[in-house]
Amino acid sequence: MPLIQVDLAQHIYNELHEQLSTEIQAAQVEALDITPDDLFHVFRPHGPGELKFDPGYNDVDRRDLLLIHITMVHMYPVSKKRALFETIVRRLGALGLRPEDILISVVENGFEDWYAGR
Amino acid sequence: MPLIQVDLAQHIYNELHEQLSTEIQAAQVEALDITPDDLFHVFRPHGPGELKFDPGYNDVDRRDLLLIHITMVHMYPVSKKRALFETIVRRLGALGLRPEDILISVVENGFEDWYAGR
Amino acid sequence: MPLIQVDLAQHIYNELHEQLSTEIQAAQVEALDITPDDLFHVFRPHGPGELKFDPGYNDVDRRDLLLIHITMVHMYPVSKKRALFETIVRRLGALGLRPEDILISVVENGFEDWYAGR
Repeated sequence: MPLIQVDLAQHIYNELHEQLSTEIQAAQVEALDITPDDLFHVFRPHGPGELKFDPGYNDVDRRDLLLIHITMVHMYPVSKKRALFETIVRRLGALGLRPEDILISVVENGFEDWYAGR
Repeated sequence: MPLIQVDLAQHIYNELHEQLSTEIQAAQVEALDITPDDLFHVFRPHGPGELKFDPGYNDVDRRDLLLIHITMVHMYPVSKKRALFETIVRRLGALGLRPEDILISVVENGFEDWYAGR
Repeated sequence: MPLIQVDLAQHIYNELHEQLSTEIQAAQVEALDITPDDLFHVFRPHGPGELKFDPGYNDVDRRDLLLIHITMVHMYPVSKKRALFETIVRRLGALGLRPEDILISVVENGFEDWYAGR
């Protein structure tokens, strides 16, 4: 049950939210072997000023901020996490989003920390 | 100091936010023995499209998504967490919300990770 | 790569978001020795009713709620966290915000849990 929370500019949300969701989910399926129906995505569109970032941190040319916050059970090795990040960035890149503008943060919990409808 | 963050449909927020807050807090008091005034709730109403979910994952008939994200100190046994989930679902059920539509996710930290007004 | 997420009243956001960001970042630089360009802030302004709190919990006279949620790598001793909280509160206090109205919550992860533009 990874929970995906995406904070992004309103205009990107308006243009791409369906495709963003599709590609992020495909990345999870591809990299983590979750089932396609294990899908919980919260999108939070933001106006100008609400997303603040530095245009050069980490030696990248950053022009926007698209935050993908993932809450998931502590069970994946580092290699799987890296594969997930790479797959997300590649798939969102195919939608025209710049890798430099993406920030991904994972927070982990346990199986006992979830209730999903029953 | 559990921190409750609720992402939900705008219309459910409009109709029920006061009662949702009351019942979630009552569930915390009942299941975790916190004091009633230990109350920090953030509600985030969402328009259509911002909450994406699968209608059948986990073998439930899901029609909406109400996410309750709980940040709390690592101190409760699994049995208490389960009791908390059951109590929240039962109390929100009494408001007319479907258990199948509720997603709860807990993330834990330590006592040293909080500042609460002093 | 601390990630800062701030949930606050709309009117405070409107009046102070630039200064809030500046002071929170200065507090991170001062207390955690991060570089000034390591800046990722998400602001979420809220209407009345969306931020719920108790006016007296923790023996403080609370009149509003400004939540600062920090996701950062598990690497700082408790003393650094306390210094961070004190520095944030002092700097926001200089903007006219009441310490009693501030809630800070830290959640930690690992170096492997981040992707920051590359």
